This record gives sequence, structure tokens and C-alpha cells, in this order.
Amino acid sequence: MFLSKKSGHAYNPIYEENRPAELLTKKGKKVIRLNQGDPARYFKTPRYLIEAYVRALREGKTFYSSSAGVMELRDAVSERYKRLYDVEISSSSVLVTQGVSEALSFLNAALINDGDKAILFKPYYPQYIPNLLMCGGGVLFGDYEEAKGWKIDADALSRSIRKFVARNGKRIKYMLITNPNNPTGTVLDRKTLEEIVDTANDHGILLVSDEIYDEIVFNGARFTSISKMATGVPHVVLNGASKGFDATGFRIGYMLVPSEDKFSRDLLKRLTSLTTMRLSSNTPAQYALADGMRNEREHGEAVRRMVKEIEGRVNFITGLINRSEYMHAVEPQGAFYVFPKIHMDRLRLKDDKQFTDGLLKEEYVELSRGSGFGARDHVRVVSLAEKGTLEAVVKRMERFCSKHAKGRG
Amino acid sequence: MFLSKKSGHAYNPIYEENRPAELLTKKGKKVIRLNQGDPARYFKTPRYLIEAYVRALREGKTFYSSSAGVMELRDAVSERYKRLYDVEISSSSVLVTQGVSEALSFLNAALINDGDKAILFKPYYPQYIPNLLMCGGGVLFGDYEEAKGWKIDADALSRSIRKFVARNGKRIKYMLITNPNNPTGTVLDRKTLEEIVDTANDHGILLVSDEIYDEIVFNGARFTSISKMATGVPHVVLNGASKGFDATGFRIGYMLVPSEDKFSRDLLKRLTSLTTMRLSSNTPAQYALADGMRNEREHGEAVRRMVKEIEGRVNFITGLINRSEYMHAVEPQGAFYVFPKIHMDRLRLKDDKQFTDGLLKEEYVELSRGSGFGARDHVRVVSLAEKGTLEAVVKRMERFCSKHAKGRG
Repeated sequence: MFLSKKSGHAYNPIYEENRPAELLTKKGKKVIRLNQGDPARYFKTPRYLIEAYVRALREGKTFYSSSAGVMELRDAVSERYKRLYDVEISSSSVLVTQGVSEALSFLNAALINDGDKAILFKPYYPQYIPNLLMCGGGVLFGDYEEAKGWKIDADALSRSIRKFVARNGKRIKYMLITNPNNPTGTVLDRKTLEEIVDTANDHGILLVSDEIYDEIVFNGARFTSISKMATGVPHVVLNGASKGFDATGFRIGYMLVPSEDKFSRDLLKRLTSLTTMRLSSNTPAQYALADGMRNEREHGEAVRRMVKEIEGRVNFITGLINRSEYMHAVEPQGAFYVFPKIHMDRLRLKDDKQFTDGLLKEEYVELSRGSGFGARDHVRVVSLAEKGTLEAVVKRMERFCSKHAKGRG
Repeated sequence: MFLSKKSGHAYNPIYEENRPAELLTKKGKKVIRLNQGDPARYFKTPRYLIEAYVRALREGKTFYSSSAGVMELRDAVSERYKRLYDVEISSSSVLVTQGVSEALSFLNAALINDGDKAILFKPYYPQYIPNLLMCGGGVLFGDYEEAKGWKIDADALSRSIRKFVARNGKRIKYMLITNPNNPTGTVLDRKTLEEIVDTANDHGILLVSDEIYDEIVFNGARFTSISKMATGVPHVVLNGASKGFDATGFRIGYMLVPSEDKFSRDLLKRLTSLTTMRLSSNTPAQYALADGMRNEREHGEAVRRMVKEIEGRVNFITGLINRSEYMHAVEPQGAFYVFPKIHMDRLRLKDDKQFTDGLLKEEYVELSRGSGFGARDHVRVVSLAEKGTLEAVVKRMERFCSKHAKGRG
């Protein structure tokens, strides 16, 4: 008896310090844990959404839903895209999934033959990779360029696609962007998005946009959904309840496959078949989200309040970080992460892993190492906690850096 | 742009008449749909469980849970197995999943290399197969033998394993039994289970038991959990909220990997890693089930009431079916399906697919064809509806058979 080879890819670097952090907590240490991007731990899921959920439960909506999702939610998503982004997306192009993770696993299953590739940009959300590899796929990396405020250089991207295709043939199945970005907090501007759409289209690559943070945008940035830009071009949008609706524990995501070309229709059909394999997503949570999505007034108020608070916290900690001689962060415009570069050359530490390990052990702060996101010498700081906590964290990081600075001790 | 080959396996025959059934309904026809085994459509999910869910929501338990499940539920599952089956299963051997479907997909991911096999017994629950095939695996079929009341002949099983291994080497990764069975309603007796455990052990094959119907047992049958029989032997038990707790729409399943041998420990660790890829199951539903599982009195009453009702309905329709000259069913002892053999030789119909197609079109009854379960010339009847409905269904089946009988028309 032995395990499969492919399952060796299953790994979540965001969780890798959880066990030591829990052990420290058990020993009575007060560990500040800023590794998981879970708004519902910091902002109570809005009351209107909870009450909609309670209503669904009490009305007995506890049966299997249609595998593709309850029509109420698919309709509500369609209306949402009309209202927010002025795009027409038919309810039948909306598939409800158990979070964005499941949506991506369906996408990989639907597209990836052994040896096929997907384009991801560094730094990437770590969980984009394991399922892709387990499906027999591989990654072709592009870059969000830190020096350019974590933007994508479309020319460089095109060149690298051409080079790859010349050598390996048309094995690139999709290109995945995250906008607003996790871990950098960048919001891609319209022009960059146009270039990305053109690039995907030129090379016949399916464009996938993870827009789970689409309502968490601040510092004057403007978010544009790929659904608005890519009309007529094969594309998939991923979104869900977790972030804007502050309801991570609902495990309700959705995917849009709105284009009318033959490939998009085939893909939608195949993805729909894949949803039947697990029968249904959580039914009452779907009804709750449908209700919440249609409750413009209360949702609007809740998300504005939350985003304003997040903006204050993110800007506060970014300011503190950027006063340090040991680290520097590009100012985020969305999501709730700060992703500073650590000036490792000023420290007597090997790498960002040693940094996060040491920071936990010595200063009781749990962050995630940048190398887990494909960006060494960085750390990701979930910046949802209150300012007092964020201040304490930067102080401890600073103290940790001083202690391990070159030419000291 | 094109789809992957493997995703072509995604298919759910239980749903294949849904679309035509919905079209008929839209045209104003009153279709009786007995294809999906969803107790929550017939019996209200018990109030104590709904209220526990409401409490979790109002207490703000809407964040990501630990990927392996909230400790409250893992503890409650461990206590359940001690109470019901007198087995010691540590909470750390319990993994919470999004239904049994997800548990099985983790198992396939953890075990299956290209070309590996799993033993399934015909008739099987259809969704055991697509994910296995998509993971690169294949099926080696055993049989539940209808002539022996759908029991397994362990000698025949051993012979077929030896034959396979002699030809192909040790490529059989697991053997999956369903007890109580879907679609036959059989409850395997202790002696058969002992033989199965021995067979798995002799051949070094992981034994997997899907026990999702373990509390829905009647007609004097006694259910034995494999967890009780297979102590010390590598095995996995699958179970969840859907059937006994009458809460299909919660999407909460769990898997047990209780043995202490090295392989079982490695498997548990790998499965735990796999759960981190999708972060969490629905959090408030986990707390609700933990509460419900510990609420012995109210759960006990609810499940006894439901099982008594199911027993009456299943026996009622089995009796009617067995008065027909066109079909015959082995009497079920558990779950809520009746799986009659249709005497196709007495009908002018090609196969069971033509039977279910025709029955829907002509008599407005939706059943599932047996060939979708690997048993041609059968149909599966979900027998949860009230007796009046079940009576109408058998009348329509009878009328349909008469109309298509040989030597008539």
C-alpha cells in the first residue's frame, strides 16, 4: 500500500506555521496570527446576511440544490454584474461552487491534459498551483513587476508566450490573473487589462480572472471586471461570498463563463457536468447569498463600512512598514494584504522562511513567507486586525530585524 | 482551445432525465420524480438541528474553519462511534469533508496513480466512478449477487483478485463497499463483513466502507460498521450529515482513518494536506452537526420516527412491485431505495434506458435506469414519497409495462 505521486503536490504554505503557532498558544504565549485572509474573524458577517441564512434554514431549504446552484443565486449574480459592471451575463452562464478553490479545480479538470500549462503571475496565490499539478499540468510563470507597482508588462508576457509556443506548441490552456491581487493588493488598471485581454486573444489562451476581492478597493483605485473588457473573448470570472460579503465560512463561490463562442459553450457544459459529481453546494448558504446580493442597501452599507476600515488599517501598517530600514511595501489599492520586501541583505538570515520561522519563535507573530507565493524575500501580512495589533506587529518585526541585522549582536 | 480528455468522464446518470422532466413540468404535466435520494425533500430536517445551525450563525461562526474540520465536530464524531459502535476513534483520525463525494475525491487523489485500480461491486453508486477515472484509475468489478439477496461471495472475490494480480501486479489500491447499500438497500451481515475484511487484508488492499445510511436500517436487520470489524487493518469509513441527519443540503461529510499502522498514518496525513487545498467546509453547518450529534435524545427520536416511516414506505412499494408480473425486487433492509429487476424479456423494449425514458414520457414518472449503476434491466426507485404517491408510481409502471408487453398492442 502506498500513496499516489500526484498528491504529494498538496500543500498550503499559508498554513505551514499553524502547528507551531498553536503549540506556542498552548504554552500560554499570546501569538498574533496574521497569516489567513479571513475577514469574518475581524468583521462580523453582516446581520442582514445572517438573517437571510436563518430564514432559508427555517423555511426548510436544506435539501440538495441543483448541482449548478439554486436559480435564485444564479439570477442574483447575473443582476449583480448588470448593476455593478453593466454587463449582460445570463443566469445559465453562472455556476455556483464550493468556494473559488472548487471553481478552479473544475477548471483544471475541464482543461488540463498531461503536460498542459497555465500561465500564473508571480507573486501568485499559492493554492492556484497544487490542483493544477495534480491534474497533470504545469506552470508557465509571468510576473507582476514590483518595480512597476506590481503591474504586468504585456510585451514581456507576449514574448514569453511566443517563445514557449515556438518550443512546445500550443499547450497553454489558460492565463490566470488575480484582480485585486492577493498578496500584493494591486488593482490592475484598464489599459493593462486591455493588453492582457488582447494577449490572451492573440494567442488563443483562455483568460481567467479571480475577482474575489472586487468590492474591496480603496485609495482611489478603480476596479474593472474582466467581464466588462473581454466581451466576445473566451474568459472565466471567479468570485464568491467570501471577501466582499465577509462570509468565508459559507463556502459559496461562483464562476462565470459568459461568452457565446463555441469553446466557451462547450466549457460551460463540461463544467456543469463536473458540478454533478458532488451533487450540490450548501443550499441554505446559497439562498442567503442570493438574498444578500439583492439587498443593495444593506450590503452597500456593510461593504462600505468594512472597506473604509480596511483602507485605514492597510494604509496604517503600510506607513509603519515603510518607515523601517529593513522592509518596503508597494502601497495596496485593494484586498487586505500588505506584501513588503524584506531587505534580506541587511540581515543575518538565510531567507524569508527563516524570517517567518524566527519571527514566530522569537516574537510570536505568524506571517506567511513570500516564497510560498513565488516571491522570495517578502512576507505577506494580513492587515485586517485593529491598528493597535498592527502596530505591535510592526514593532516586533522591527525588533526582530534589529536583532538579526548585519553588523550587530 | 479544447477540453481535457479526462473530464469527459464527468457524468451523473441519476440526473439524466432531469432536463426532460423539467420540460414536461413546464408544459404543465405533473411529473413524479423519484430519482434523487434526498430525504430532506420529504422529511423536514429536524428542528433541533436547524436551531443548532441558527445558533452557530448568530454566534458569528462564519469564518473559515480548520481545513480538517472544527474540533467540536471531530470530537462529536469520535464520541458517536464510541456510543453507537463501541470503537475508539481519536478525533485526529476524523476529517470533515464537503459531503462523501469530496471525501472520495480526496481518497482517489491520495491513492491513485495512472493505471491503478479500485474494486467496486455491481450495482454501485454511479458517482464512485467518474472521479476515479479522472484521477487516472480504473475499476475492477465485483458483484453483489442478486440471487443471494445482493450479498458478496467472498470466495469469488478472492479468486478474481488473485487472477487480476497474477496478470497485472499489485495495482489494486482500494476496495469500496456500500453498507447499507445504494441502490439495493442491502445490509451486509457480520459474517460477510468478516470475509471482506479478511480478503482485503490478505491481499493488502485498503478497505473503504461508505456507511452514509448507517442509521437507516429496518426490517430487523442489524448494521455493523467496518470500524468495528477492521480494527488494526487499514480501512477508511465514509459518513456524513446527509442521510441519518436528514440534512443533504448541509454538505457535511466525514471520513475516518482510524488504524495505527504506518500506511494508515501516512494516508491520514496526506488526506489532511488535501483538505488544505480548499481551505474549509461550511463552518456553521459543522457546528450544527456537532451539536446535533451530541443531542442524543432529539436526534434519536427524529431518526427513529423517520426510519419507521421509511420502513413503511419501502415495504409498501416493494410489496406492490412484487405483485407485478413485470418486475421483482429483493426486499431492502436499509437506505430508502427499491431496485427491482424488470423482466425485459416480457417487454417490447430494448433496455432499461428505453424503460426510464418511456416511463417519463408516457407516464410522467422519473426513475433512474439500473445500467447507470452497472445493473442492466433494473430501475432504482427512491421510496421516500408518501404511500399514495408510491402507489400511483407502481400503477403507472404497471400500465407502462402492460402497454409494452410482448404479444400485446
